[in-house]
Amino acid sequence: MGLEGLSINLATVREQFDLRQAVEACRKLGITAIAPWRDQVERAGLAEAARIVRDNGMRVTDLCRGGMFPAPDAAGRQRQIDDNKRAVDEAAALGADALVLVVGGLPEGSRDIAGTRSMVRDGIADVLPHARASKIPLAIEPLHPMYAADRACVNTLEQALDLCDSLGDGVGVAIDTYHVWWDPKLDEQIARAGKGRRILAHHICDWLVPTRHMLLDRGMMGDGVIDFSPIRRAIETAGYDGPQAVEILSETWWQRPGDEVLETCIARYQSLCAPAS
Amino acid sequence: MGLEGLSINLATVREQFDLRQAVEACRKLGITAIAPWRDQVERAGLAEAARIVRDNGMRVTDLCRGGMFPAPDAAGRQRQIDDNKRAVDEAAALGADALVLVVGGLPEGSRDIAGTRSMVRDGIADVLPHARASKIPLAIEPLHPMYAADRACVNTLEQALDLCDSLGDGVGVAIDTYHVWWDPKLDEQIARAGKGRRILAHHICDWLVPTRHMLLDRGMMGDGVIDFSPIRRAIETAGYDGPQAVEILSETWWQRPGDEVLETCIARYQSLCAPAS
Repeated sequence: MGLEGLSINLATVREQFDLRQAVEACRKLGITAIAPWRDQVERAGLAEAARIVRDNGMRVTDLCRGGMFPAPDAAGRQRQIDDNKRAVDEAAALGADALVLVVGGLPEGSRDIAGTRSMVRDGIADVLPHARASKIPLAIEPLHPMYAADRACVNTLEQALDLCDSLGDGVGVAIDTYHVWWDPKLDEQIARAGKGRRILAHHICDWLVPTRHMLLDRGMMGDGVIDFSPIRRAIETAGYDGPQAVEILSETWWQRPGDEVLETCIARYQSLCAPAS
Repeated sequence: MGLEGLSINLATVREQFDLRQAVEACRKLGITAIAPWRDQVERAGLAEAARIVRDNGMRVTDLCRGGMFPAPDAAGRQRQIDDNKRAVDEAAALGADALVLVVGGLPEGSRDIAGTRSMVRDGIADVLPHARASKIPLAIEPLHPMYAADRACVNTLEQALDLCDSLGDGVGVAIDTYHVWWDPKLDEQIARAGKGRRILAHHICDWLVPTRHMLLDRGMMGDGVIDFSPIRRAIETAGYDGPQAVEILSETWWQRPGDEVLETCIARYQSLCAPAS
């Protein structure tokens, strides 16, 4: 497998590299796509980040991340909507394929998950006209249900696709193996996403057993229990042939040299992530 | 609210009390129902445990737990089936309303979640005739998706009910707020469970933010983000009026005096867990 189907989400090497270092390290190894985070772009400066990406011929598979819509009051929600519009602009400046949305969890003190989900829907609806005008698709990322309270209250692909159906054009999903591998309806919902042309990104990351920390103990492909090939097959069959973006938040991998992490990503991608035949 | 609608799953005080101590402490406080674990029953001796329960006029809402069906080979799976039949016998000896099934996760070294789910279905099917003959309903407990790999590969109420539909009579579900609170289809699937008369147990426990340990940091009602009253309302509307069983696995609460834990269970149950009107 060549490397044109591989993207590196730069959170994977965030402790080792700044944006320029990460891009240059990727290019040296033959990797041609990245997915940066907004704080990494901000530290480089948006114009300079766009230049680094362009000068190195990098595809930007997605910008991470917009979202975080819920807030205790209307003013807080408006601030989030405004910030999401700026994120759309940044994605446009970088030429990103999509802006990923981690939609947010319960506002401080709230136990109203249904109401929180309404805030998310309303927030995306408010950002969507600007995203459409900017030709930046919004990729709703369903996060693992263990993040429902504090990070994202969209927790299954089915729920994300229901949301897309209610919102219309310009919005789709980011499918991250870490978040969805357990879902008994995964194959069915990937097929549904394909029919609606809703698949905007495919992230890869493994589920470790045991998982020692709910946020920062994600696994390199092959070190956990996820079977990547059948999921990739389902996603390609559904019509998405964009790169697989490695996104691993891991205290373990952040302690290893960045080049070694990237080389491991390449090796595991090539040996484990080809679509099942 | 009186206490006839409250049951204590004895895992909640497993570090403080043995079976007899737990039952006596419950009775002293006016609690009339318990849900013991098999290891607690075994330590007391089955006949003695049944006598303790009977002499104290305790209802046994469920016995925890059967399940753990997947195994790497046929001999291993048969051992689990045999053990589940013994669990049925123990539930019958205790006069339990149901035997809870925590179905099991991936066998060592496996990445085949679909195959594992088939093992679970086959295992329950093999135990079911004995359970029916013993008049012990099997209560499949969907566990939070964060346990899909290592504890239970049945992870949503919808999936559990699909399994029930495929198995016929004598099997239903245990609904634990901790495992299902995040589910966007919760209300819909509780109603479905009611129509099929599948609700066999209702467990209560809160989701803490942050959750510091994936197994042993569950919360007392009121200390987390779950809104209990609407869930109870949905369950009662669906036709289940059995007790709510407090099941809290918590290193924190295990360090407090058992009587204090039970008193807190009562207070929180009475103030937070009545069905929403």
